[in-house]
Amino acid sequence: MGGTMNSKDNQPDASIVKDSKGWVSYRPELKILDCTIRDGGLMNDHKFDNKFIKAIYDACVDAGVDYMEIGYKCDRKLFTPTQYGPWKFCDESDMKKVLGENETDLKISVMADVERTDYKNDFLKKEESLIDLIRVATYIHQIPTAIEYIKEAHDKGYETSVNIMAISTVQEWELDAALEALANSPVDTIYLVDSFGSLYQEQVSYLMRKYLKAANAAGKQVGIHTHNNLQLAYSNTITAIIEGANMLDATIDGMGRGSGNCPLELLTGFLHNPKYHQRPVIKCLQETVRPLRKNLLWGYEVPYLLTGQLNLHPRSAMKFMESAENQDYVKFYDTVFQEE
Amino acid sequence: MGGTMNSKDNQPDASIVKDSKGWVSYRPELKILDCTIRDGGLMNDHKFDNKFIKAIYDACVDAGVDYMEIGYKCDRKLFTPTQYGPWKFCDESDMKKVLGENETDLKISVMADVERTDYKNDFLKKEESLIDLIRVATYIHQIPTAIEYIKEAHDKGYETSVNIMAISTVQEWELDAALEALANSPVDTIYLVDSFGSLYQEQVSYLMRKYLKAANAAGKQVGIHTHNNLQLAYSNTITAIIEGANMLDATIDGMGRGSGNCPLELLTGFLHNPKYHQRPVIKCLQETVRPLRKNLLWGYEVPYLLTGQLNLHPRSAMKFMESAENQDYVKFYDTVFQEE
Repeated sequence: MGGTMNSKDNQPDASIVKDSKGWVSYRPELKILDCTIRDGGLMNDHKFDNKFIKAIYDACVDAGVDYMEIGYKCDRKLFTPTQYGPWKFCDESDMKKVLGENETDLKISVMADVERTDYKNDFLKKEESLIDLIRVATYIHQIPTAIEYIKEAHDKGYETSVNIMAISTVQEWELDAALEALANSPVDTIYLVDSFGSLYQEQVSYLMRKYLKAANAAGKQVGIHTHNNLQLAYSNTITAIIEGANMLDATIDGMGRGSGNCPLELLTGFLHNPKYHQRPVIKCLQETVRPLRKNLLWGYEVPYLLTGQLNLHPRSAMKFMESAENQDYVKFYDTVFQEE
Repeated sequence: MGGTMNSKDNQPDASIVKDSKGWVSYRPELKILDCTIRDGGLMNDHKFDNKFIKAIYDACVDAGVDYMEIGYKCDRKLFTPTQYGPWKFCDESDMKKVLGENETDLKISVMADVERTDYKNDFLKKEESLIDLIRVATYIHQIPTAIEYIKEAHDKGYETSVNIMAISTVQEWELDAALEALANSPVDTIYLVDSFGSLYQEQVSYLMRKYLKAANAAGKQVGIHTHNNLQLAYSNTITAIIEGANMLDATIDGMGRGSGNCPLELLTGFLHNPKYHQRPVIKCLQETVRPLRKNLLWGYEVPYLLTGQLNLHPRSAMKFMESAENQDYVKFYDTVFQEE
């Protein structure tokens, strides 16, 4: 487990490594959230069958993962249920079919996109739900509405977190104001999210310190959610751990939108907490997740590199990857640089 | 270009990023060495045709790369020329067929493995050779012989570098002694090499400072050569840049032994020196390198993750990847953990 080799005041001095207690030990506060189903669902409109959901669930339980995100809590008035699979909505009855009463230590989370959720009606009281954690995903201009979502979820008995999206395009004074507002909300965890997969490790360090300063003063923790456009999803997660992030998002085989996320099989190999196990993750990768790659093209590829590098939403790269000419990287390069 | 956001004394203070001169500028001392042909040749016994070599060469010239490594300088008495392609030996006549007189700014390097090279005979005088840089690859127990190689190459007029291999299995006092001996040699560049792809960023930082301390005091520079077992090849290269490494190894499409190396298409997108261009790299990736992946299975995959994580040579993972059951990752997991 990294994070305690004392890189905050690192100097070229052998004492850095000699003080290796943290390196061979672990930080019990660190928690893993598997979002394979939720972020992976962005690649197939959340059309997973129950067998797939159950396999991910079993793998998370066996691997000692702390939270599993099963999907979105979207408003059926805004999204046609015929167009999307059940994990766009996460009805209690659908979850129950797969998880039963979830008599395990694995907590269940859902994501609620601000302005896409009928949060007053669709957030049930905690005691009526299999959900433990509601994660509110918000753009910077939606923060006041996000805080209403957070309050509603908090008041109904849930753990809460907030993901501020697309911060690589946000001015710093706006981000500071958002963090201040969230610090004053009842949210439990504030997530640093690299939506476009465009952040380098120095930027993750800088932002993580900013988030931690705001969150810790209010008794909250900070999480990290990365994308792999620049092959930095895992590395940036480690950097966030070193700085002090305690909630870590990861997905099996890195499955997720576009270039995907921090791979859970890497993270469970890195963290030293005895509760985590890597083998069940690799088994699930092999038997359940990897076979989907024939049709769902997630993972690092040149077009995602380019949108990440240019700090752009990956949608143009995703569209390109779905096209017949998806190996003509030079064409995509020329298009994306012309449009810039 | 990273490296000057002042992470050496980083504090949670906005001044870190506000001092962004280095971030938007560049460090002119940074040089790129493309080793696609040399490290990639470990996947096919160096059997590349001249068209391939020429395409990589043209891409390097167009991309502004500083050095291109064309292969090994191995002893024909030790390696049968029928078993290996010409780039295991790099005869002047073979190089000349492709490069002509190399009337470009691109410098040519070869690697000389200690105890595998007839260095007194096969290192010609510089004026008789297309080679500019001889890179001596050595294990820790071969350092005295490596220094003989270095002296021979230096005296014959070449630039020289040394790659100390497999340092993740070397005791620190031995490494310190090796660095001291090399600092007293005529070598120009000492390379930090992550042979097994097992190093995390904190370890790269620590080791890079150690190497720099020894090298800089002797007026030498330090280089970095990474492998992608843990998806950290690019990230570790950035970390090395931040610490002060000035010679950066990379390969097109990350082509290299096992999990491969730091991808040149990522590195040329990261460095801000106007001399570097990314488009020729992407073009060569698309037209020349990627097509080889049908037969040569380089790149990140679960078995390489596991040998990297366990700090093992990748040979067992390479053998597994060449077998018919190369998608039974659980079987490899069980094998490698039993053997540990």
